[in-house]
Amino acid sequence: MAGTLDDFQKFRAEMNEEIHATDHLGMKRFFALDHQCYQDGALPGKTKELLGLAASAVLRCDDCITYHLVQCSEAGWTREEVIDALNVSLIVGGSIVIPHLRRAFARMREIPALREKSAPKAGDHQKARAPKSTAKRS
Amino acid sequence: MAGTLDDFQKFRAEMNEEIHATDHLGMKRFFALDHQCYQDGALPGKTKELLGLAASAVLRCDDCITYHLVQCSEAGWTREEVIDALNVSLIVGGSIVIPHLRRAFARMREIPALREKSAPKAGDHQKARAPKSTAKRS
Amino acid sequence: MAGTLDDFQKFRAEMNEEIHATDHLGMKRFFALDHQCYQDGALPGKTKELLGLAASAVLRCDDCITYHLVQCSEAGWTREEVIDALNVSLIVGGSIVIPHLRRAFARMREIPALREKSAPKAGDHQKARAPKSTAKRS
Amino acid sequence: MAGTLDDFQKFRAEMNEEIHATDHLGMKRFFALDHQCYQDGALPGKTKELLGLAASAVLRCDDCITYHLVQCSEAGWTREEVIDALNVSLIVGGSIVIPHLRRAFARMREIPALREKSAPKAGDHQKARAPKSTAKRS
Amino acid sequence: MAGTLDDFQKFRAEMNEEIHATDHLGMKRFFALDHQCYQDGALPGKTKELLGLAASAVLRCDDCITYHLVQCSEAGWTREEVIDALNVSLIVGGSIVIPHLRRAFARMREIPALREKSAPKAGDHQKARAPKSTAKRS
Amino acid sequence: MAGTLDDFQKFRAEMNEEIHATDHLGMKRFFALDHQCYQDGALPGKTKELLGLAASAVLRCDDCITYHLVQCSEAGWTREEVIDALNVSLIVGGSIVIPHLRRAFARMREIPALREKSAPKAGDHQKARAPKSTAKRS
Repeated sequence: MAGTLDDFQKFRAEMNEEIHATDHLGMKRFFALDHQCYQDGALPGKTKELLGLAASAVLRCDDCITYHLVQCSEAGWTREEVIDALNVSLIVGGSIVIPHLRRAFARMREIPALREKSAPKAGDHQKARAPKSTAKRS
Repeated sequence: MAGTLDDFQKFRAEMNEEIHATDHLGMKRFFALDHQCYQDGALPGKTKELLGLAASAVLRCDDCITYHLVQCSEAGWTREEVIDALNVSLIVGGSIVIPHLRRAFARMREIPALREKSAPKAGDHQKARAPKSTAKRS
Repeated sequence: MAGTLDDFQKFRAEMNEEIHATDHLGMKRFFALDHQCYQDGALPGKTKELLGLAASAVLRCDDCITYHLVQCSEAGWTREEVIDALNVSLIVGGSIVIPHLRRAFARMREIPALREKSAPKAGDHQKARAPKSTAKRS
Repeated sequence: MAGTLDDFQKFRAEMNEEIHATDHLGMKRFFALDHQCYQDGALPGKTKELLGLAASAVLRCDDCITYHLVQCSEAGWTREEVIDALNVSLIVGGSIVIPHLRRAFARMREIPALREKSAPKAGDHQKARAPKSTAKRS
Repeated sequence: MAGTLDDFQKFRAEMNEEIHATDHLGMKRFFALDHQCYQDGALPGKTKELLGLAASAVLRCDDCITYHLVQCSEAGWTREEVIDALNVSLIVGGSIVIPHLRRAFARMREIPALREKSAPKAGDHQKARAPKSTAKRS
Repeated sequence: MAGTLDDFQKFRAEMNEEIHATDHLGMKRFFALDHQCYQDGALPGKTKELLGLAASAVLRCDDCITYHLVQCSEAGWTREEVIDALNVSLIVGGSIVIPHLRRAFARMREIPALREKSAPKAGDHQKARAPKSTAKRS
């Protein structure tokens, strides 16, 4: 993983602030539109967060996946439901999605509501368990 | 549009049959897995059809959009809900999605449950209304 | 080619009108933002039309290429300049761009300011010259 | 399908000729480089044609797939080998590849060496067999 | 960010040298063609650098964006013009472009001519300002 | 590079194990299918590993490229053959592939059978040679 969830969120907040500070009206409006897109509408915002996650996964954008995992967690989706959504992205997008799936699972360790019950805590991330001798594909 | 919904479904059924007839075990298994992916699981199949639609739209695959529009309709999603899902794909994927959005709207004319109340029927597709003089962007 | 430029523009105008008629605020705002994007700003609109063309070509969207070819022509770009811009897209995007390049050249036959001086008129499109015996690659 | 293999080849030859006639040195050199890429080198040209097919399929470019199917056939690859290569693209690229897979199978009907022994000839393309009642997924 | 601009340029120079040392004629020619593509032609090289930036941004390639930011700066484009070009890529490519936009803005801090007047210098990159409590979207 | 080959393999093995532990039947089956895809069939597994590499390179997935480089090495492909395959991906995918090509060359330093005879060993990776004054493009 490229950094902790906290690193991601600090960098995201800092840079979004810098982008807004440029006063490019088009960019500011797009950011606002992007925010509104996930509000309740004909579909509840909760459902649209899951759509955002599935779309991010097939487009293979790690930062977008991280962002939507946090949003999905806050919207009340469970680990099992998130995994089932990621499976749709895996089938639609193919094995090229697998590296992003691995990083999504690693990221979920840092999101309490999406963490596996018996999973290692985020702090344990460094000491990776020894890889099995029978390496699994991809 | 490249053809009617009926043309699409005939070609799809005919070619899927030919692909299955080749007896390539890998392909057959992938087609089965693709089918199972949208069955009820941690998420209801209905939700996953909508995920499939959103993923297809950001990946800009007209045939996949057509297929999932039909599935979404059969799963009980309404026109307004489908449009709200397509809006997520538009914001995630940008203006490059717009041509596919136009074709999705044209396709919905052929799917009774997704048709606009006052919309022209599929049969009226040929006689397009004259374009407005103030052409709208993209 | 999937149809004439006139077919494209009629379908585009008709469907854009239908999309606007749905009153989905997010979609309407995105269409407005897309329009504003190409207005004069820090860069002249003319330059941004060319950026839109180059972006459309590497993303391999025929309808977007058609749209931006028309816009580039109206903004005053010449055939030679448009071809030089398309070459950037070809080098950035690789041989997978070539089929779209062919369709872009065919579309330019229908746009007076972008037409080759000695090129066949749009109406001559049907009677394709016999292919050379030494087929050129891709 | 968007047209016959003959239509494709005529359009391709005609437009490639027009592109060459523009005398844009960069484009001409890229076309030459693209041609040389599939000549014998550290790998035989035959192997590289198959790589070109697999790459075209995951990038979902129908014209490129058609082109490489013809080249693979001329290089001596059999129908079974081509299908096994397309399966790699299906697994790598996911279900979004399926519509292109269907069109690849339809195109193989027009290429004698890749045609299924008992397959309908190209001329029979119009009269599609009635779709099975149990429609197969995607 | 994955490293400093200096890290990027050292790695790029070192690996380009190694690629050239392999004496694969096709690769060497493609690298030459890529270089020539941005020389003055029907369009000035300066304009084509901006096209390269816009194309890189919609294709979501951080290294390509970094490279073209440097080239655009050297060609004389200002920060405001580069931001306006990036806005075209944002609208064409959608919210999936946003993470790359953030990294583009961070990279501009390391390029004197593209740095915000009151922006933190590259050396201050580590001590990120505390994220605002009202996190902005994406 | 984002880390050593050993880092990659440990992370991959650890996360694949965690994904399998979730007992999502669809994901488990897809991983199995992905594994079977590269077994001997109508084409030898060795050939399909090269197809997997070419497909990964045009889809610009560094982890997938790393994985397939290792597999290609184990299947018996030489450095020269792998480079010739990567050239197909470069021509098909364009200059946007170049950053991934650079990382592929850096990765090959860590794979004995794919290492350049006179290449620096993996351990020397840190002390990059000073970049040439005449920076090569992209």
